[in-house]
Amino acid sequence: METQVVIIGGGPSGLLLSQLLHVRGISSIVLERKTKSYVLSRIRAGVLERGLLALMQEAGVSDRMEAEGYPHDGTLISYGDEIFRIDFPEHTGHSVMVYGQTEVTRDLYKAREEAGGLIEFEVDDVQIHGADTDDASVSYTVGGETRRISCDFIAGCDGFHGVSRQAIPLDVRREYEKVYPFGWLGVLSETPPVAHELIYSTSQRGFALCSMRNENLSRYYIQCSLSDKPSDWTDTAFWEELKRRIPEKYAEALVTGPTIEKSIAPLRSFVTEPMRWGRLFLCGDAAHIVPPTGAKGLNTAASDVHYLYNGLRQFYESGDTSGIDGYSAKALARVWKAERFSWWFSSLLHRYPDQSEFDIKMQVAELEFLRTNASAQKAMAENYVGLPY
Amino acid sequence: METQVVIIGGGPSGLLLSQLLHVRGISSIVLERKTKSYVLSRIRAGVLERGLLALMQEAGVSDRMEAEGYPHDGTLISYGDEIFRIDFPEHTGHSVMVYGQTEVTRDLYKAREEAGGLIEFEVDDVQIHGADTDDASVSYTVGGETRRISCDFIAGCDGFHGVSRQAIPLDVRREYEKVYPFGWLGVLSETPPVAHELIYSTSQRGFALCSMRNENLSRYYIQCSLSDKPSDWTDTAFWEELKRRIPEKYAEALVTGPTIEKSIAPLRSFVTEPMRWGRLFLCGDAAHIVPPTGAKGLNTAASDVHYLYNGLRQFYESGDTSGIDGYSAKALARVWKAERFSWWFSSLLHRYPDQSEFDIKMQVAELEFLRTNASAQKAMAENYVGLPY
Repeated sequence: METQVVIIGGGPSGLLLSQLLHVRGISSIVLERKTKSYVLSRIRAGVLERGLLALMQEAGVSDRMEAEGYPHDGTLISYGDEIFRIDFPEHTGHSVMVYGQTEVTRDLYKAREEAGGLIEFEVDDVQIHGADTDDASVSYTVGGETRRISCDFIAGCDGFHGVSRQAIPLDVRREYEKVYPFGWLGVLSETPPVAHELIYSTSQRGFALCSMRNENLSRYYIQCSLSDKPSDWTDTAFWEELKRRIPEKYAEALVTGPTIEKSIAPLRSFVTEPMRWGRLFLCGDAAHIVPPTGAKGLNTAASDVHYLYNGLRQFYESGDTSGIDGYSAKALARVWKAERFSWWFSSLLHRYPDQSEFDIKMQVAELEFLRTNASAQKAMAENYVGLPY
Repeated sequence: METQVVIIGGGPSGLLLSQLLHVRGISSIVLERKTKSYVLSRIRAGVLERGLLALMQEAGVSDRMEAEGYPHDGTLISYGDEIFRIDFPEHTGHSVMVYGQTEVTRDLYKAREEAGGLIEFEVDDVQIHGADTDDASVSYTVGGETRRISCDFIAGCDGFHGVSRQAIPLDVRREYEKVYPFGWLGVLSETPPVAHELIYSTSQRGFALCSMRNENLSRYYIQCSLSDKPSDWTDTAFWEELKRRIPEKYAEALVTGPTIEKSIAPLRSFVTEPMRWGRLFLCGDAAHIVPPTGAKGLNTAASDVHYLYNGLRQFYESGDTSGIDGYSAKALARVWKAERFSWWFSSLLHRYPDQSEFDIKMQVAELEFLRTNASAQKAMAENYVGLPY
């Protein structure tokens, strides 16, 4: 088989890249290790930056998001019983869109299928060949049969545990990592959200986030110990702990109910450099991970897709390689800014086991500064709605 | 003896408070442990915020500062060979004044002496009595003789190692502290400064600061090990190390020469709460210490003096105690903001022994964000010129 771009990974970045390339007449094949229903069962963040919205519009997959998504003009931040709001349009002229990553993926699958795009599911033993030569290909097995696709380029959109990053030799690759000493216990519940906008809350007992998917679907998180298991937390225990971590007026208004999903995620900051090796380009979680505070994961993957898509388009339209040659540097410059924001926002809101009383006072002082200073709010809002590509 | 306010400590905060009270007809006596010439030999920071300028004007001691000080409209920040400038008037409408703390102290002594203000030098065994009663006094010995001054109020301006803070019972007092794992080696040199404005510089080898006193007097600092002694550093070694830590173009332009002072200072963040106990009020280093990065030490002492002076004035003018009753809360709110800024600016620019590669990347990402983002620059400039009282 043959195609212009092999895309390893059928999550939202791989699908978005494939659909964008398709709109420009560039062929691709997507390889996905799992089934479509498995991919669609993964629950992830749901706050989309304007840059991702623009890409979805360009890919022709924004109709349902525009009809069903919830534009958010601000976010609430609380500490103890103090609460304040950061207004996004006031500071930046932009909003964010609340629309689940699962829905983004669903819309992209629909578009790829309608366009007759080739997606191979349940592939195994994916191997990248000759990425540093003029004869690149990807081999894999599916249903016991081995296949190989010759291609011009390979996009590694296969996440943190995927094969793409590993294909870059160790003497070329440099990795940076921070593992946070806590996790997030998240629940999905068919209850009305306690607030229309998100509440990022810190308290003596740790961090909590009140988020939402729609008017009858809420997403709540609390910082938990890395040794906790979801089964350690009954619904009652979760709701009680959440109430202790948010301002009283919200705790009183909180509507609780059975949870339909409960899981624990670790928090990690990770970046690999470079993001290109010959004909292989890494996108999204394959190259970098952020802690979920501030919802930069999917959005940063989207900025990679933006740079790669434009680089490939430029190459196929005019033979100009400057876009793909500059990919790693351009993508990484923005990645590091998103890493900084996610690290800062995580550091501001969580309790750390080794924190001194002075460190906690610094968090409070920073929250006070953010509450009272317009420049600090503007810098935060600019990061939250997404720095320009 | 008897006076309205006993001021313990004859450094700049104590003298400034004494002179301000004098202007309003409120009597005070200043007690200083050392000699005047010792106090004037202490070399400290020299960047004054507008709030301190206003207080010096109000105290009638600003003439020489206005004639001889250097208004600075910006500062330079460098990392590696990247350098950028933050413009203060552009972002805040204000500047800072470069004028040595020693000169401030000298001007204040002159004013106190001209006004016949009483300053007792070389006092020993200072003790605070009845600060929590209506019968407050301060006793001390001088030249072998014990004296006692009855007073309405006591201002503790006697620095971190003074007796004032210790007079507040431990069950009332709460202390917060962070000790940084490095020091600053500073030199004073009769050479023209390498730049008119300050350069805050970070590099793989650690922090450096290029500062100035006047056109032929430079003040330079480099981050050093806490185990270093000034005698470990020859002048040549100092200059060589400084050159390695600043951008090449400045290293080449640096004029070196014999140093006339060389000393090592540790870096500490420290706050005690509350800042008032009965008739005793703490000001400046007696209550809080900041690391010198960002020059907030004297300036934060000045904000305490502002709140205390106004509270005392209000009390003596109208019997209204709201200013002195609110002193601790108001002073501390601003102290914590200065602590946050000094901690943040120190964390941004120094190398830490336990720093990971990821942590260093976060510093660079934050510097990149500051270099390229107007809101971040504005927030920094607002802190640097001094948040409003």
